[in-house]
Amino acid sequence: MEATGRGLTLGIGDDAALVRPTARRELILTSDWTIEDVHFRLKLHPPDSVGHRALARALSDVAAMGGRPRWAVVSLAISQSLPDVWVKRFYGGMVRLARRFGVAIVGGDTSVVPDRISIDVVVVGDILRGRALRRSGASPGDQIFVSGGLGLSALGLKLLESGRKPQTRLGRAALAAHLYPQPQCALGEFLARSKLATALMDISDGLSIDLARLCRASGVGARLWESLLPVPVAVVTAVSSPPKKSPRHKNRAVATLDPLQLALHGGEDYQLLFTVPERTAAKLPLQLCGVPLHHVGVIDPGNAVRLVRASGKVEPLTPAGFDHFRKVR
Amino acid sequence: MEATGRGLTLGIGDDAALVRPTARRELILTSDWTIEDVHFRLKLHPPDSVGHRALARALSDVAAMGGRPRWAVVSLAISQSLPDVWVKRFYGGMVRLARRFGVAIVGGDTSVVPDRISIDVVVVGDILRGRALRRSGASPGDQIFVSGGLGLSALGLKLLESGRKPQTRLGRAALAAHLYPQPQCALGEFLARSKLATALMDISDGLSIDLARLCRASGVGARLWESLLPVPVAVVTAVSSPPKKSPRHKNRAVATLDPLQLALHGGEDYQLLFTVPERTAAKLPLQLCGVPLHHVGVIDPGNAVRLVRASGKVEPLTPAGFDHFRKVR
Repeated sequence: MEATGRGLTLGIGDDAALVRPTARRELILTSDWTIEDVHFRLKLHPPDSVGHRALARALSDVAAMGGRPRWAVVSLAISQSLPDVWVKRFYGGMVRLARRFGVAIVGGDTSVVPDRISIDVVVVGDILRGRALRRSGASPGDQIFVSGGLGLSALGLKLLESGRKPQTRLGRAALAAHLYPQPQCALGEFLARSKLATALMDISDGLSIDLARLCRASGVGARLWESLLPVPVAVVTAVSSPPKKSPRHKNRAVATLDPLQLALHGGEDYQLLFTVPERTAAKLPLQLCGVPLHHVGVIDPGNAVRLVRASGKVEPLTPAGFDHFRKVR
Repeated sequence: MEATGRGLTLGIGDDAALVRPTARRELILTSDWTIEDVHFRLKLHPPDSVGHRALARALSDVAAMGGRPRWAVVSLAISQSLPDVWVKRFYGGMVRLARRFGVAIVGGDTSVVPDRISIDVVVVGDILRGRALRRSGASPGDQIFVSGGLGLSALGLKLLESGRKPQTRLGRAALAAHLYPQPQCALGEFLARSKLATALMDISDGLSIDLARLCRASGVGARLWESLLPVPVAVVTAVSSPPKKSPRHKNRAVATLDPLQLALHGGEDYQLLFTVPERTAAKLPLQLCGVPLHHVGVIDPGNAVRLVRASGKVEPLTPAGFDHFRKVR
C-alpha cells in the first residue's frame, strides 16, 4: 500500500496514521465490506477489479454526501494459499483508483484466515460544514434525476457469468461498468457546492430499492416514468442476442435481461440519484462534470412509489434487488 | 449501534456519517481485525468480551499515539445461524466500552457470510497538531518504561482454556485482563500533552516483539532488566498451582506459564511502552493517571536488544509472540 496525498502526516508503519483535516470542513466516514462469494467471485473477477470495486464502493458513499474523498483505511483478511501476485494485483487496482481520486491509503490491518477473502474499506472524506446532502431533503414537487446509465453493471455481470467475450463496444462498456465502476465524486461535490440538490444518494443496490430509501428518509412518495429511464442501448443490444445454450438457459437469460428490470433493479451502478426543486430542474444542463443527467420522475406527497408505464398505466414500484452475490448465499 | 458524543453531525442511516473535527487537531486513523478462531473463539469468549476486545484493540492504537479516541466505524460479517442475542450482547460490550471513552459508534457495514464471524473496527482519534508520539523518537540513554503489569492477559487466556474458574482475586484479575482489557488512553494523552516521552507504542503482541519494533523504528538497541519486569503476582501464584490433568498436559502447562516468558512474550496486555530522557526519568511518579509505571530498561546505541538476567548475565532477547490464536491457524 502507498501513502500519498495532501494532509497526510504519518502513513503506514506506526501504531496508527496521522492526517490533517482542512479547517471549516466536516468529515464523512463510511465503510464497505467486499467479501469473496458475497460481493465477488475469485473465478470471475480479476484481482485488480476486486481492489478497484472494494474502494469504489466507499468512494461512491462519499460522492453520495457531496463530499471529497481524502483517506482510506484498508483491512485485508486472506488465506496463506492465495498467491502473492493476486494480492499485488488487488492493491494495484485499488491504488490506481485511489490516485485518480487523490485518496491516500494510510493504513489498515491484515490477517490470515483459512479461506474466504474479506476486505473492509473505510474512507474518510470531507465537505464544507453544513453542505452535506442527505437522503432526507426531498419535498413534493421536487424533480428526480439520475446520472449516467442504469443496469449496465448488472448486464456486465451477466456477460461475465456467461463466459462470453463481449463482441461489441457496448458489451465491453457493460463489462467495464461492472468490473471498474466509476464513483461520481465530481458530480456529487458539484451538487453540494452549488446547492442545486435537495436530496442525494448513490444507487448501489438498484434504483427501485434506493429510491424507496430516499422516499422513506424524506417522508415522501415518488413517480418514475418508464419512458424517461436511461436504459442504455447496450442493454437493449445484448438482450436482443441472448447466449445460445440450452433452451431453458436461453429462456432464463432472456427473462433476466429485460432492460426495464435491469434499469430498475440492477445494482452496483454507483450512479447518483438526486432531487432538485421544480424551478431549478428546468435549468439543469443535459450533463454535468462529464456525466449525462436524466430526469426520471417527480417527488409526490404521501409515501407511494409508483411507475408510470409507457402505456400510461400507473403501478406500484416494488423494491427488488438484482440477484447479485448478496442474494446468492 | 448507537451514535452519541460531541462532534457528531449525522449518525447511522444515510450513505455515510458526518463528524466535526476540532480545530488545530490532527486525526489519528487505525483499524483492527477481530476474526473468529484467529482473535477469539466462540466457545471461549463471551459475546460482550468479543465486542469489548474488538474496540479495545483500536482504542489502544490511539492511546499509543498519545491521542483521544472520538469516533468508531464497526463492520460486522456474521452467519445467519448466529443467534440475535449474541449480536446484541456483542454490541452491548462494545457500546459500554465506547461510552466510557466518549467514543461515538457512527457507522459501519454488515454482511452475511456462511461462517466465521469477522469484525473490523476503525477508530478515528485526534490530537493537538505535532504532538503525536511515534515509535521512532527513542535515543540512546533514554529510559524504558511500561505501564501496568505484563503477561496478565496471556495468563487469563490460559485460565480460560483450562476451563477452571479462577479461585483467587488475582486469577480473576488475569481473566478480566484477557476478556476486558483496558486501553491506556488517559496515560497516552498525558504523555503526549506533557511532552514527557520521546517514543510511545502499545504492547499488543508482547514486550519482546513490540520493543524490537520500537528499537527498529528508532534505529537503536535496548537492555531490559529481568528483575525490573512487572511480573504480576497473579502469574506467580497461578504458576505455582498448575491444573491437575495428565502428566504430559501438566508439564506443558508449567513450561508455558513461566512468569518471565509470559511477561516478555505474552500478548494482548494493551499496556503502553514508552521512553523518556534520563533526566526526566528520575522525576516520573510511581503512577500516572491511576496506572503504575515500571522502569524496565534503557535504550542503547546500536541495534541489539538484550536481557540482563537476575544473575547479571546479559543475553540477546529474541522477539517471540505468545501462542495466542494468531499462531494457531
